[in-house]
Amino acid sequence: MKKIGALEAGGTKMVLAVYDEQGNELERLTVPTLTPEETMPGMIDFFRRHEVDALGVGSFGPLDLDENSPTYGNITSTPKLAWKDYPLLKNLLDGRDIPAGIDTDVNAAIIAEAELGAAQGCENAVYVTVGTGIGGGVYVNGKTAHGLLHPEVGHMLLRPRADDPIPHGVCPYHDGCLEGLAAGPAIGARIGGDAKNLPDDHPVFELEAHYLAQMCVNLIVTVSPQKIVLGGGVMQRENILPMVRKETARLLNGYVQSPMITENIDEYIVAPRLFPVSGLVGSYLIGKRALEKT
Amino acid sequence: MKKIGALEAGGTKMVLAVYDEQGNELERLTVPTLTPEETMPGMIDFFRRHEVDALGVGSFGPLDLDENSPTYGNITSTPKLAWKDYPLLKNLLDGRDIPAGIDTDVNAAIIAEAELGAAQGCENAVYVTVGTGIGGGVYVNGKTAHGLLHPEVGHMLLRPRADDPIPHGVCPYHDGCLEGLAAGPAIGARIGGDAKNLPDDHPVFELEAHYLAQMCVNLIVTVSPQKIVLGGGVMQRENILPMVRKETARLLNGYVQSPMITENIDEYIVAPRLFPVSGLVGSYLIGKRALEKT
Repeated sequence: MKKIGALEAGGTKMVLAVYDEQGNELERLTVPTLTPEETMPGMIDFFRRHEVDALGVGSFGPLDLDENSPTYGNITSTPKLAWKDYPLLKNLLDGRDIPAGIDTDVNAAIIAEAELGAAQGCENAVYVTVGTGIGGGVYVNGKTAHGLLHPEVGHMLLRPRADDPIPHGVCPYHDGCLEGLAAGPAIGARIGGDAKNLPDDHPVFELEAHYLAQMCVNLIVTVSPQKIVLGGGVMQRENILPMVRKETARLLNGYVQSPMITENIDEYIVAPRLFPVSGLVGSYLIGKRALEKT
Repeated sequence: MKKIGALEAGGTKMVLAVYDEQGNELERLTVPTLTPEETMPGMIDFFRRHEVDALGVGSFGPLDLDENSPTYGNITSTPKLAWKDYPLLKNLLDGRDIPAGIDTDVNAAIIAEAELGAAQGCENAVYVTVGTGIGGGVYVNGKTAHGLLHPEVGHMLLRPRADDPIPHGVCPYHDGCLEGLAAGPAIGARIGGDAKNLPDDHPVFELEAHYLAQMCVNLIVTVSPQKIVLGGGVMQRENILPMVRKETARLLNGYVQSPMITENIDEYIVAPRLFPVSGLVGSYLIGKRALEKT
C-alpha cells in the first residue's frame, strides 16, 4: 500500500496529512506558520517518518507553477517576507526523488470539490474563499488554470455601490478590487469594528452579498462555471449565501439563459462540501495524480 | 484529399469557405445575414456542391454547445428574432452524416489565434473583439471554455471612472457592463455622434483604453492568460492598444509579478495575427478537429 503526503500551506497554519491510496487519512498534523527555519524541519520530518511515496501541496502564493521553470514550486513575491522566494516544494522533498505536485491552496480546494465535493462531475467550476482575504481556484476543462501564473480572483475590479461608505475598498494595491471591497477587513472598516456581534440583518451583510454577486457575475461571463463554490470565514454567516444567489440572478438580469441560473440557482452557487478540508483533500489529490503519472 | 467546410456566422454577414486538409482555402463566399429562409439555402448548397467531408462553424450566439443536448448546435436566446432557437448546425448539415463541430465566433477566433496566430503555443489565451458589441473567446488548458453555456465576456461589470459622462453605460441589460461602457455605441453616446472623424488624441479614446484595461485586469486575475488578443472595429484605431497596455500595467500596480506584464506587455496584449479571418480559420480548425476525431 502506497502512502501519499499532503500539505495545505496557509498563512497562519500548516495542515499536513498522510493518506493511503484509497484516500483514507492515516494521520494529521497542524502546526503554526512561523518562519521557514522554525516551521520546515517538523514538516520534513513528518513526511520522512511516514515514508510517503508521493507528495501534494496546496499553498498560499503567489507560486511558480511552471514545471519547466528552475524555480518551480517556489513561493514568489508574497508579503510574508520570511517565505518570499522560498523553495517550498524542493525543500519539503529534502532530496527525495518521489512524484510531487503543487498548486495554489484555492486551486487545490476546487480540485477537491470538483472531484469529490460540491462540484462533483463538473468540467468547469470555481471555488472562492472569502475571509481575511479573498482567493479563487479556477477549474476549466477538467484542470486548474495556470497560464501566465495562476488566477488571483480576489483582485478583480468591481463597481462601487452608491451607498458604500468605503467605495474604494481597503486593498493597498487596487482602487476598488473584490478583496478590498468584500474581504473581512472591508466589513470591519465599514462598521468601525468587529462584525462578529452584528445581527444577520445588519445592512453591511446585504452590501457584502452585493459585491460577492458582482464577483459571481464576472466569473460566470468569463469562465462559464457549472458550479460556484463559496467558502471561507465570512461565508460562515449563513444568511449571506442566499442573498448572493438572489443578487447574482438580479444583476445578470436574464442575460445568461441557463436553467441553473433562472430556476436552480440554489444548486448553482453553493457551499463547499468538504469544508474545512477542501484544500487538504485537494493537496492529497494533487499528490495522487503525480503518483499515477509515474 | 478531404475537404473541410467552414462558416463564420455573424449578425450582419455569413462568411463560408472550403479548405483542404493542409489548410489551403479553395473557395470563399460571403452573403448577408437575413432570415434563415433567405440565407440558409445558399449556404447549404455551397457546402453540398463542394461535397465537404467535415464542417466547422463559429457563430454569433448564444449557442447550445452541450454535445449531449437534443438542441446541440442551435442558436438560442438571440435578440435577432428570426434566428432565435434556430437549429443552425443541424440544418447546415441537411441530413448529411459528416463530422461537424460548432463554437461561438469568438471562441473560434481564439482557437485560430492560439493554434496559428498571435497566441500560438499558448495553453491559456483570450480573444476579445471590440466593435458594435464586445465578445470574448476564452481558451484554457488547450480548449475553449464551455461549462454552463459559454463565456459572455462583454457583460462583465466594471468600475465607472469619475469623469465618464455615461457611468452606467448603454447596455439595456446591465448597469455598467463592459459592452455598455466600451463598445462602439458607448463611444458614440459620449461624443453625441460618430467617432470616426475624431482625432486620435481625443480624450474619449483614453477613457476607452481605461475600460479595456479594466477588462484585461479582470481577465488576467480570473483565467491567467498567456496572451490577450484584442481585435474588432474599435481596435482599428491603432493608438488605443498601446494605451490599453500601459493602463493595464498601471491598474495591476505590480500585483501580478510576471515579466510579461512588468517588462514585455507589448508582447502580452496584442493585435490578432489572422485578422480579419480569425473566426473563419477557427471554424475550419473546428471542422478539422471533428474530422480527426472520427
